[in-house]
Amino acid sequence: MNPPRTPPKFISFEGIDGAGKTTLAGELSRLLSRAEIDHIVTSEPGGTGLGERLREILLGAGVLEIDPWAECLLYAAARAQHVREVIVPALEDGRWVVSDRFADATLAYQGYGRGLDVERLRSLHQWIARGIWPHCTVLLDCDVAVAYERRKTRGAHADRLERMDPAFHERVRRGYLALAEAEPHRYLTLDAAVSPERLREEFRRKLCLRRDLFPEGL
Amino acid sequence: MNPPRTPPKFISFEGIDGAGKTTLAGELSRLLSRAEIDHIVTSEPGGTGLGERLREILLGAGVLEIDPWAECLLYAAARAQHVREVIVPALEDGRWVVSDRFADATLAYQGYGRGLDVERLRSLHQWIARGIWPHCTVLLDCDVAVAYERRKTRGAHADRLERMDPAFHERVRRGYLALAEAEPHRYLTLDAAVSPERLREEFRRKLCLRRDLFPEGL
Repeated sequence: MNPPRTPPKFISFEGIDGAGKTTLAGELSRLLSRAEIDHIVTSEPGGTGLGERLREILLGAGVLEIDPWAECLLYAAARAQHVREVIVPALEDGRWVVSDRFADATLAYQGYGRGLDVERLRSLHQWIARGIWPHCTVLLDCDVAVAYERRKTRGAHADRLERMDPAFHERVRRGYLALAEAEPHRYLTLDAAVSPERLREEFRRKLCLRRDLFPEGL
Repeated sequence: MNPPRTPPKFISFEGIDGAGKTTLAGELSRLLSRAEIDHIVTSEPGGTGLGERLREILLGAGVLEIDPWAECLLYAAARAQHVREVIVPALEDGRWVVSDRFADATLAYQGYGRGLDVERLRSLHQWIARGIWPHCTVLLDCDVAVAYERRKTRGAHADRLERMDPAFHERVRRGYLALAEAEPHRYLTLDAAVSPERLREEFRRKLCLRRDLFPEGL
C-alpha cells in the first residue's frame, strides 16, 4: 500500500449492542482500503492476549457478580494494554486505527450506565492511555428496543451486559448522546434505526464532509 | 465466639515476597482466636472468585507482558471486589479482617517499583475501596537478598513479579519504608531478617503496645 497522505487517524465506533458498530467498522475498512489508506481494525475488550482473557471474565459464560469499579478497572486494563500493544504502534507506524469501542464506552456504560463519576473515569483514562482519544468517534444511535430485536435476530448468546435491564441500556444511550453533544467536532452521530443500506449511505456522506480526516476527499 | 469487645479492626500485612507475611498473619490469627476475637484471614490478589481469576493472569504460568497501568488496574479490580465481597461484609458483621497484602502493596509495587505516580494510585484507591484503609499495617522489612534466599529455600515456583530483577525489589522495599515513615501511627514495622521465633516475639510485644487496637490488652 502507498504511504498515507495525511498523518494516520484513530477512529472509534460506539453505541449500544445491536446498533451495528461491527458492520459499519467493516464498511470504513473497505472505504479506507479503496483509498489505499493502510489501517488496522481492532476491538475492545480484546485486541490483545490480555484483553481476550479479560473479555472472557467480563462477558464470558460462568458469570461473576462484579463490583462496578472492578468491572470498570478490567475494561480500563484491557484498554491500557490495547493502547500500548496495538494502537500506539500502529499510529507510529503510519497506519490508521479503526476500533470497535474505546474510552467512550467506559464513560457511557460504567459512568452513565452504572453511575460511576464520569470525571473520575476521564482522569483514569488520561493516566492509563497516554492521553490518547480518537480523532473521530462514530456513534450509532438507536432505540433500545430496536437494538434488542436485532440482537435477538442475530441469534447471539446474550452476554452479561446484554442481560442488563432495558433501563440500563437507556441510560447508556442517553450517556452516549450527552458525550456526542459535548464534543460535536469529535463525534459523528448516525441514526442507526434505519436500514443497513441507508446507514452506510449516510455514513459515507457524513464521512466525506470530515475534511479534518480526509483533506483530499475519500 | 463472644461478640468483640471493640469495634472490629482491619489489619494488613505487607513486605516483599519471602519476608514472612503469611506466617505472621497466621500468628495474628492464633492470637486473636486465643483472645476470642472473631475474625477472617484473607489475601490479595485473590480472596474472591474474580480475584482468583485475576491472580492467575497476574502471577500464573503463561506469563503475559503486561503494561504497568494494566497490571495496576488488575490488582485494583481484585481489590474493589475484595472490599465489596469480603472485607466490608466482615467488618459490618463485627469480625476483624486480617489480610495478606492490601492497598499499600499497589503503592509500593506499582508506584515505587514500576514508577507510576503514587498520588494517582492513592486517588484511585479512594474511589474504588470506599475510603477503606487498614487500622494497622504490619510491614515486614527485610533485605532483598535474604528474602530471595528464603523464597528459594521455600522451593516456591517463581512467579512473574518474583522474577523481576533485585533493583525492582529494592525499590519496592524502599517504597514500603517511605510509606511507613509517612504514617507511623498506622504502620507497625518489624525487622524480618531475624529468626521466626524472634520475629513472632517482637510482633507480639509491639502489638500489645497498640492500645488503639487492643484497649484491654491482648
